[in-house]
Amino acid sequence: MKKRVKLSSTLNPSLSFGYMKKYLLTPGPTPVPEDVRLAEAQPIIYHRTKEFLEIFEKISNDLKTVFKTKNIVLTFLSSGTGAMEGAVANTLSPGDKALCIKGGKFGERWAKICEAYGIEVVPLDVEWGDYAKPEEVKNLLEKEPDIKAVFATLCETSTGTLFPIEKYGPLIRQRAGTIFVVDAISGLTACDLQTDNWNVDICVSASQKGLMLPPGLAFVSISEKTWKFVDTSKCPKFYFDFKKQLKALKEKTPTPYTPGISLIRALDKSLSRIEKSGIDKVILRSEKLALAFREAAKTLGLEVFSKNPANAVTAIKVPQGLDGTRLEKILDEKYGVRVAEGQDHLKGKIIRIAHAGYIGKLDIIAAISALEFSLRDLGYPVRLGEGVKVVKELLKSLN
Amino acid sequence: MKKRVKLSSTLNPSLSFGYMKKYLLTPGPTPVPEDVRLAEAQPIIYHRTKEFLEIFEKISNDLKTVFKTKNIVLTFLSSGTGAMEGAVANTLSPGDKALCIKGGKFGERWAKICEAYGIEVVPLDVEWGDYAKPEEVKNLLEKEPDIKAVFATLCETSTGTLFPIEKYGPLIRQRAGTIFVVDAISGLTACDLQTDNWNVDICVSASQKGLMLPPGLAFVSISEKTWKFVDTSKCPKFYFDFKKQLKALKEKTPTPYTPGISLIRALDKSLSRIEKSGIDKVILRSEKLALAFREAAKTLGLEVFSKNPANAVTAIKVPQGLDGTRLEKILDEKYGVRVAEGQDHLKGKIIRIAHAGYIGKLDIIAAISALEFSLRDLGYPVRLGEGVKVVKELLKSLN
Repeated sequence: MKKRVKLSSTLNPSLSFGYMKKYLLTPGPTPVPEDVRLAEAQPIIYHRTKEFLEIFEKISNDLKTVFKTKNIVLTFLSSGTGAMEGAVANTLSPGDKALCIKGGKFGERWAKICEAYGIEVVPLDVEWGDYAKPEEVKNLLEKEPDIKAVFATLCETSTGTLFPIEKYGPLIRQRAGTIFVVDAISGLTACDLQTDNWNVDICVSASQKGLMLPPGLAFVSISEKTWKFVDTSKCPKFYFDFKKQLKALKEKTPTPYTPGISLIRALDKSLSRIEKSGIDKVILRSEKLALAFREAAKTLGLEVFSKNPANAVTAIKVPQGLDGTRLEKILDEKYGVRVAEGQDHLKGKIIRIAHAGYIGKLDIIAAISALEFSLRDLGYPVRLGEGVKVVKELLKSLN
Repeated sequence: MKKRVKLSSTLNPSLSFGYMKKYLLTPGPTPVPEDVRLAEAQPIIYHRTKEFLEIFEKISNDLKTVFKTKNIVLTFLSSGTGAMEGAVANTLSPGDKALCIKGGKFGERWAKICEAYGIEVVPLDVEWGDYAKPEEVKNLLEKEPDIKAVFATLCETSTGTLFPIEKYGPLIRQRAGTIFVVDAISGLTACDLQTDNWNVDICVSASQKGLMLPPGLAFVSISEKTWKFVDTSKCPKFYFDFKKQLKALKEKTPTPYTPGISLIRALDKSLSRIEKSGIDKVILRSEKLALAFREAAKTLGLEVFSKNPANAVTAIKVPQGLDGTRLEKILDEKYGVRVAEGQDHLKGKIIRIAHAGYIGKLDIIAAISALEFSLRDLGYPVRLGEGVKVVKELLKSLN
């Protein structure tokens, strides 16, 4: 059924349009809400004041709710990788053994950081797109009783895969000589993460994903058990020194070095957005958006890359014969929808679309619409609107 | 001569005022211009795009002009201390010997970082407020021929002291086995710093001082000579890895980890402000502001703490018998002028006022005015307006 319409103006319909409304759907940075951006843009204040201390203590406390922990949460001025490095350098010593669960660019990053510090890596290699079975973790832990830390990833951003942290955690709980460290950088607020219940000793996250901020803040929650590891660690550290950071927070300095003042005030604003909903509602929303997006993609004949898709980001396989880089370019340049390409060997083979943070159901409809258009532009058979229909059906009651 | 005036309204003249105009005069953060703050608040963009790459390459290039160098300038997402740590961890190995010129909190920080990395520190202890004589540096270098790096500070923020970098640099130039590393975090754009002419191998700076930005970006310029040290360094590093950062910049990635997108766009704006004046004019302005402030303070009977005052910040001795913490509090709470206290053993003994970045002559007049009022409140004999008169006289032709 083709609808015939006629423009009422007599302007040349082929005039080109010089600017375009943009939809950011990359899995980091994710869009930053207007009030959060304006909080970031406030006149700067001095950090050694009661005013700043109150904000810093409030965000340090509010983050506990988001992390689902009673543990202390430290805030660093860096991207997430800095805090990942801190988790290694503060707890281990050269020659120590660490189990690194891989399966993507970020799982591999744990191993690279460990290697940089002379830690002996016991790798648990997982095909990209898959996750590590808890039995595999269990077996490796039994085989290597001197493993001092297990490094895992909640949501592997490079493949859109959820790892069953809740299954790994209990395997480590009884081992006094082992801590469990989780990268929840892209997962936090999109995938459920129960730091304390799941026995996560160090949970690392960052600002530019589900927390709806620009990049620049990194967080670590640290269990009581972990501090004993910190006491004996012999790796050098300075900027990411956990003990110094904790001391400053306790002494209400509140940080040993100049903190990210503008970003912390923005964080205060975004955390109050999350608080208004409650963290579980925020997670559920991402789950529903992700589900609807995946179902719509399947309806278009597309395949989800991951064997255990995460809520934070969906990786879609680029159909056979199409160029993923081209698809991503058309989505951006012709339709204003910015998604992320595949990384490393997945470059050109997948595209990745975020569902975490300040992304609503109309953004998901926009993404699917643009995907329909773009695929058709590349000669892939699509019935326009078919994907959109699925999203609308699945999300009609989402608020 | 007392002027008598009468309020024309019949309102109660003792009504208290619930909010107050604030003047930020701390030596970091310094005020951020409105257009820079709005640049920071723009809708966030994805960093793996041509749009961001262009901005990143532009700022990387523009920073060279500010640093007065032809060397590469790398940008990290951290506060300045992170880049200081990078300068140590990327060039030295445990057991190496380094000369650390102290004389304040930040000179001492170099030594602390070196110690954290197992570097043997040859200290050049300088009384706080004084600077190291070039002969002392020369003697130590001759006495310890295996010193691999000399760490110095352009402007020691804790004391407001300028160190003669231009005298130290030539002492190191002929030594193939030694590099010269300078912390220009608070000095850059306020004190002259000729990285190449003065033989500075690594110059470290940060965003929240003379560059008129919030905290969050740290910079290092790296000489050709330095890269040979980087090749042999055995200290562990990851987030602050110079080689990886350089590789990403060259491959136009443009950074190995998520960069400080919002701050980098703000930096682009502040650098164009500096470019409009030219870096030398910016430095001269700070010099004139600092000079006028110091002369005015002396007229009020106050003493400048430093034996070699820097343009970026002036430390004023709190007059005998007055409480510095109280003075700083009155300045802030009663007059809205936020200055910094002394640090460590200088707490309560000095106050520090910035002249770097987005601070103009009327701010200096405001600072002196508030100082006159506050001193009088504390019972110190001041003739109101005497300091202001000096500032106005000295700065009348400053534009």
